[in-house]
Amino acid sequence: MAHKYVYLFSEGNASMRNLLGGKGAGLAEMTGLGLPVPQGFTVSTEACTRYYEDGQMIAPEIVGQIDEALAKVEEINGKKLGDANDPFLVSVRSGARASMPGMMDTILNLGLNDETVLGLAKKTNNERFAYDSYRRFIQMFSDVVMEVEKPKFEAILDAVKEENGAKLDTDLTADNLKEVVKRYKALYLKEKGTEFPQNPKEQLMEAIKAVFRSWDNPRAIVYRRLNDIPGDWGTAVNVQAMVFGNMGNDCGTGVAFTRDPSTGEKRLYGEYLINAQGEDVVAGIRTPHPIDKLKEDMPEVYDQFVNTAKILEDHYRDMQDMEYTIQNGKLFMLQTRNGKRTAASALKIACDLVEEGMITKEEALLKIDPKSLDALLHPTFDPTAIKKAKSIAAGLAASPGAAYGRVYFNADDAVAASERGEKVVLVRLETSPEDIEGMHVSEGILTARGGMTSHAAVVARGMGTCCVAGCSDVRVFESKGYCTIASEKVSEGDWISLDGSTGKIYLGAIDTKPAEVSGNFATIMGWADEYRKLQVYTNADSPADAAKAVEFGAQGIGLTRTEHMFFNPDRIPAMREMIVSKNEDERRKALAKILPMQVEDFKGIYKAMEGRPVTIRFLDPPLHEFLPTEEDDIVALANEMNISVEDLKGTIASLHEFNPMMGHRGCRLAVTYPEIAEMQTRAVITAAVEVREETGLNIVPEIMIPLVGEVKELKYVKDIVVATAKAVMEEKNVQIEYKVGTMIEIPRACITADEIATEAEFFSFGTNDLTQMTFGFSRDDASKFLGEYYSKKIYESDPFARVDQKGVGKLMEMAVELGRKSRPNLKLGICGEHGGDPSSVEFCHKLGLNYVSCSPFRVPIAKLAAAQAAIKDKK
Amino acid sequence: MAHKYVYLFSEGNASMRNLLGGKGAGLAEMTGLGLPVPQGFTVSTEACTRYYEDGQMIAPEIVGQIDEALAKVEEINGKKLGDANDPFLVSVRSGARASMPGMMDTILNLGLNDETVLGLAKKTNNERFAYDSYRRFIQMFSDVVMEVEKPKFEAILDAVKEENGAKLDTDLTADNLKEVVKRYKALYLKEKGTEFPQNPKEQLMEAIKAVFRSWDNPRAIVYRRLNDIPGDWGTAVNVQAMVFGNMGNDCGTGVAFTRDPSTGEKRLYGEYLINAQGEDVVAGIRTPHPIDKLKEDMPEVYDQFVNTAKILEDHYRDMQDMEYTIQNGKLFMLQTRNGKRTAASALKIACDLVEEGMITKEEALLKIDPKSLDALLHPTFDPTAIKKAKSIAAGLAASPGAAYGRVYFNADDAVAASERGEKVVLVRLETSPEDIEGMHVSEGILTARGGMTSHAAVVARGMGTCCVAGCSDVRVFESKGYCTIASEKVSEGDWISLDGSTGKIYLGAIDTKPAEVSGNFATIMGWADEYRKLQVYTNADSPADAAKAVEFGAQGIGLTRTEHMFFNPDRIPAMREMIVSKNEDERRKALAKILPMQVEDFKGIYKAMEGRPVTIRFLDPPLHEFLPTEEDDIVALANEMNISVEDLKGTIASLHEFNPMMGHRGCRLAVTYPEIAEMQTRAVITAAVEVREETGLNIVPEIMIPLVGEVKELKYVKDIVVATAKAVMEEKNVQIEYKVGTMIEIPRACITADEIATEAEFFSFGTNDLTQMTFGFSRDDASKFLGEYYSKKIYESDPFARVDQKGVGKLMEMAVELGRKSRPNLKLGICGEHGGDPSSVEFCHKLGLNYVSCSPFRVPIAKLAAAQAAIKDKK
Repeated sequence: MAHKYVYLFSEGNASMRNLLGGKGAGLAEMTGLGLPVPQGFTVSTEACTRYYEDGQMIAPEIVGQIDEALAKVEEINGKKLGDANDPFLVSVRSGARASMPGMMDTILNLGLNDETVLGLAKKTNNERFAYDSYRRFIQMFSDVVMEVEKPKFEAILDAVKEENGAKLDTDLTADNLKEVVKRYKALYLKEKGTEFPQNPKEQLMEAIKAVFRSWDNPRAIVYRRLNDIPGDWGTAVNVQAMVFGNMGNDCGTGVAFTRDPSTGEKRLYGEYLINAQGEDVVAGIRTPHPIDKLKEDMPEVYDQFVNTAKILEDHYRDMQDMEYTIQNGKLFMLQTRNGKRTAASALKIACDLVEEGMITKEEALLKIDPKSLDALLHPTFDPTAIKKAKSIAAGLAASPGAAYGRVYFNADDAVAASERGEKVVLVRLETSPEDIEGMHVSEGILTARGGMTSHAAVVARGMGTCCVAGCSDVRVFESKGYCTIASEKVSEGDWISLDGSTGKIYLGAIDTKPAEVSGNFATIMGWADEYRKLQVYTNADSPADAAKAVEFGAQGIGLTRTEHMFFNPDRIPAMREMIVSKNEDERRKALAKILPMQVEDFKGIYKAMEGRPVTIRFLDPPLHEFLPTEEDDIVALANEMNISVEDLKGTIASLHEFNPMMGHRGCRLAVTYPEIAEMQTRAVITAAVEVREETGLNIVPEIMIPLVGEVKELKYVKDIVVATAKAVMEEKNVQIEYKVGTMIEIPRACITADEIATEAEFFSFGTNDLTQMTFGFSRDDASKFLGEYYSKKIYESDPFARVDQKGVGKLMEMAVELGRKSRPNLKLGICGEHGGDPSSVEFCHKLGLNYVSCSPFRVPIAKLAAAQAAIKDKK
Repeated sequence: MAHKYVYLFSEGNASMRNLLGGKGAGLAEMTGLGLPVPQGFTVSTEACTRYYEDGQMIAPEIVGQIDEALAKVEEINGKKLGDANDPFLVSVRSGARASMPGMMDTILNLGLNDETVLGLAKKTNNERFAYDSYRRFIQMFSDVVMEVEKPKFEAILDAVKEENGAKLDTDLTADNLKEVVKRYKALYLKEKGTEFPQNPKEQLMEAIKAVFRSWDNPRAIVYRRLNDIPGDWGTAVNVQAMVFGNMGNDCGTGVAFTRDPSTGEKRLYGEYLINAQGEDVVAGIRTPHPIDKLKEDMPEVYDQFVNTAKILEDHYRDMQDMEYTIQNGKLFMLQTRNGKRTAASALKIACDLVEEGMITKEEALLKIDPKSLDALLHPTFDPTAIKKAKSIAAGLAASPGAAYGRVYFNADDAVAASERGEKVVLVRLETSPEDIEGMHVSEGILTARGGMTSHAAVVARGMGTCCVAGCSDVRVFESKGYCTIASEKVSEGDWISLDGSTGKIYLGAIDTKPAEVSGNFATIMGWADEYRKLQVYTNADSPADAAKAVEFGAQGIGLTRTEHMFFNPDRIPAMREMIVSKNEDERRKALAKILPMQVEDFKGIYKAMEGRPVTIRFLDPPLHEFLPTEEDDIVALANEMNISVEDLKGTIASLHEFNPMMGHRGCRLAVTYPEIAEMQTRAVITAAVEVREETGLNIVPEIMIPLVGEVKELKYVKDIVVATAKAVMEEKNVQIEYKVGTMIEIPRACITADEIATEAEFFSFGTNDLTQMTFGFSRDDASKFLGEYYSKKIYESDPFARVDQKGVGKLMEMAVELGRKSRPNLKLGICGEHGGDPSSVEFCHKLGLNYVSCSPFRVPIAKLAAAQAAIKDKK
């Protein structure tokens, strides 16, 4: 038998979502439940895939199956498509597996033409209704299928209204509408060079193709990428008998939720319009009524709807979002699906459903999108204020939250303004470690350059500060005190607002409301803790970060970047002195100044973590990052250090690198300057000893050597660490337990992980660098061409946001396998940006890692994602 | 039984070379052959490894075995170490598996002290001889074992000579020598704070330890790295009964070869000194006699030696390098080994030995070091001229050959000087593609910066031009018209000489002699062709390169870098126009100008290759490489292009990359600007069509897409290639066969090679980039820290010169396996710098690649290495 591509609603059910799409599966399931659904059929997602395989054409066998299904549906409805006396009219709607904005809109009233419109008028005895339906169809079909722009049709409608003194569409008479149809068809002829298609069968096939095409329109591609929807899923097409909400006052149409989608409150929530078709609700010309009014208008229909809603919620065991139409007092269900909801209501609904005994805790956990938790932990714009605002540009949604403030273009000005009590938004071409203080005092950060893992993005996420990064519409003229954002000029001190969750930028100050974490949040986190197998650590470079993360439930620190501590203005001089040292002696002198600061840093972090594991990464960035690049700063530094400008410039030049990402950094620094590793070891151990003495906390520091690619390299540095630790403990006459491990962030480390594990007590995947090396592109530079890669469907998701399982993941798998072979009790974690990405967390669970580590604000997300991974795994 | 660490000569043989070292195995084998060898024992290489494992000490069990062996040797010789009446004296010499300069020198006369010297004097009835031997021993032991500098001893000797009016050492009397001994011992006491060791057993153990230590001295480490000798081999120590060539005129010592090591001629070749110890020959105070004179002096000994030499050559079936001593008219053999020889003589000897029926062709091929062929293909310094020259500095031996010329500091001046008829050496900080023309006219190239795979090195090797790269002693002051090399100032127009085979730099002009390729070369290449399985292709960017490579026997082109063609001054304008284009239309216009040039390039190459396969790589470098960086040049270009300087600077700024190596290059260019790939495809196909029409040659071009990391990326570009090729063929109404494949140079390409092979018809490993990404360091930047890595024994060889089999090799293996799984007839090659490195060629053979591709001058090396790999494989 030939492969089945087309299913009657009566042939499907909810479990066939992948094949029929969400909408099609819902219609089939409702049909099965005996609910009133206008009958029709679904052309499957496989037909969509086949359409693309066949070079964008619908194969004859599929056309045959559509014909067959149509015939059966015509029989059920007792009407025939194109019947001049009593035409069968249908709607055509797209329906992918996951709800997907950006795809084709609905086409209603398909089947109308110059002939059938007469039959419809006669049959309904309502000429106005028939021509109103026809003109709507022409416009929708032309716009959606044939790409004739909507405003051209609107202009005609407005002209006819004006000519006839009509204010509203409903003021137009049947004759007026005939005139509209005439002009619409003329417009179509002019635009497309052919008559508006009169053959209903042709209309149908064109509409189906338009749905398939829309799967690959640019908006849909972007949406899929942002929402991790694979491009090969395809969309289904639903062809359904029309029912009319616009045939009189016993008709209507509306949408409703079984619970309040903003609060989660258990009550029917929705709205409806009397005597209207679906698009009228959306168009906003008439204000819809709350659904309660239906109770007054049509009590029986209301009761029936309440009952139906309950059936559906009980059946799906989740809050439902439904569409319905009432035709001549009769209720028809057009769609049901699990309703979208705010993060807060998602938590409440999940908790309520468990309490109501409708679902288990495991099911509740699976219902919550981990990423949505972000919104609970950060301020958001006031919903009414933001509705009126119009964004002027958008960048990358680099760190969530909403913020407003006065614009400043460098860290010093930002700090000064903040000290004056101003709210600040820092706008820069890109940020660098020297901007840290300015970033700290800012409400939000906007950069013109850099991706999701640029300095600005990473640091902002760590701080929990709103950040929009890499907005190419922003041009910064720092020295002139202004920037342009798209076509707007924004001067120092002007107000702007940023939404770090959407990437949007607004002029002026838009009110925000603070983060709100409810008791449901704690409940859900508690459940997540019960189920997850992965531990969740945090990346924290300061006691404040560490404390924040503990508050969110972090179980340890997976990454402390020791270098971040040295960009502080009161510390960087010692660091620079170390860098410009001419020999080991000078270097040791400078390091001796750094040591006590580093000890204090570590003590603060140990105390904040209260005995939880703390992983400390040794100095990682290339040394030139600590040196100034501007002439003025170089002169100032030379004076400060009492060396000649020439000399300093020589040092800076000698540190220049062609490809700093692949240069003298990571453990390579410790190999060439062992005294740096000695100082850092001394600080790690001394701090642990002192904290134990002061608080009784038993600290077991984990020293992490970065950028290792060869076991001998690790051993060389480890030998220094062990010798120094031993010396410190002997001096202090105490014993401290500690571990030495490595970042796995170089492909060669994965390939030779068996050897490396002989020396490393733990591995922590540094998936940022590993991704760079595996793909051979740097995250800073890749943003220039990745756009083309997405639009050309070469990559579907940002490998820096989501672990590339096929390439990078394969290397990780290799490292896990080889590493555990050499050292069965090897501790395994991840500390790259991916540690807070749900799909990557799931992957880490599958790999069998011990923990994921992410920025403090992502800890709850990682915990939930880890629980979901464990639950899915059990199934 | 305990592990055996010490072997009497009579317990070993030639097959135990790994254990006994080269010298030890030779002494054992000669002992077995019944030749006159002073007896002794060898402390094995395993003892050396054990010495390091035990923290630089000799384990008691090994000490025990040494004692035992010593006792047996004392018995054989009938004397005892330290016997005051008739002391047993020994020599101590190092002996690794491979001959290794930089290791410990010989110690003679060990066993002498204040007491035994008297016994020796009495026994030999020659007081002068006894004290001469003692003073020599003190000096050697102090220098070699205890690190008291030799010149201090020489000063004493000179002083005593002067005080006594002696001109030569031999003029000194026994009493004079007693005074020397006295002063030597005083010096030792002063320098070391203890008396010169009098206990012969202690002397012996210290000497053995000194040999072990010398295995890890910096010179030895460097030598090992340059010669691919693993650090864990260790060295053996030979302790042997002394025989004396300095006991009178019936004594002597010398070295000899069974054939002439410079020409290969079959005649005994060597020299000897009457009444002398080995070191006198080396010291050059007395001029040794040619060995023929021995025939006159001691005809019987001479005959015995000729006979011995024949026995040894027949036995080892190779030219032998022998050391011997004659004591009181009796011949003793001290060493035999396969003799070092010049490249030319190596070929002659190999051919002769085959002709003489002594060895097979396979054995002959294995006897020749592939790397040595380089010397035959390039000029070398005149041997007498170079003997007198002293190098002032050394850089990397980046491209072999010797050259002299007048110094110029930029390409334009070099070209101008060359046009005036001058011989030119180009000296630059580093070279860039814009220097190509200047490099072409130069005899030699010297750079201050960059490694073995820097631009200068790669291009020079391709051209066959001598190059010394990355000499950190060179500072270039281009604008001031001079440079400094170490402490010397060298001005424009001054003469210098370079040796690209050693990296040495000389002041002044040193005569060179041209390359000499003999008939033996052709014979050997012919044999290599019989045995090798790998095909050998070449990397060639011009018809001249291609023709050169064909002359050397290249079987195809594995890499044509299309971009090199565009740095020509008459071409770069069109390229720049393309780059600064604001849109596709402008870009297409500029590309249309480039197209005919590219067609001509390819036609020239196709014709030179006469129908052999030609692999053409599409545009690879980031576009900013084609734009100027200096203000003046930017202004000039802006004028030339009729755009504003601001505008051009904006374009240059927008093309800036943080890590160009990991930026917008390779196939990423074709993805964003498909029109570039279209133009290049059009050129490849058009050229093939035209060459076929003009010459009848059937050209099957292989289009190579660089930097692929994902199959969809390759498919996207391949689709453009296929569509364009089809269009061109339709326009011209012809059919041309062609292939589309990819470079494998990104780790992800190796990991997903099964997918990539579904689209690629061939893979070519780009091991330069693959090495960079796998290790996570860029070749340009790594030179700053790799030195430390070598000296700290983390890496033993340069991964850019020799394939890192453990890391990069593993990825290659993966790619081969996965690729062939998807496409069994996948054509596999390598086109990185490694294609001309013998050990890497052997690895490629083992991997089962189809070909290696290297620069034209390395083709013979690769062929021989491929033959050796195949022969070893058969064994």
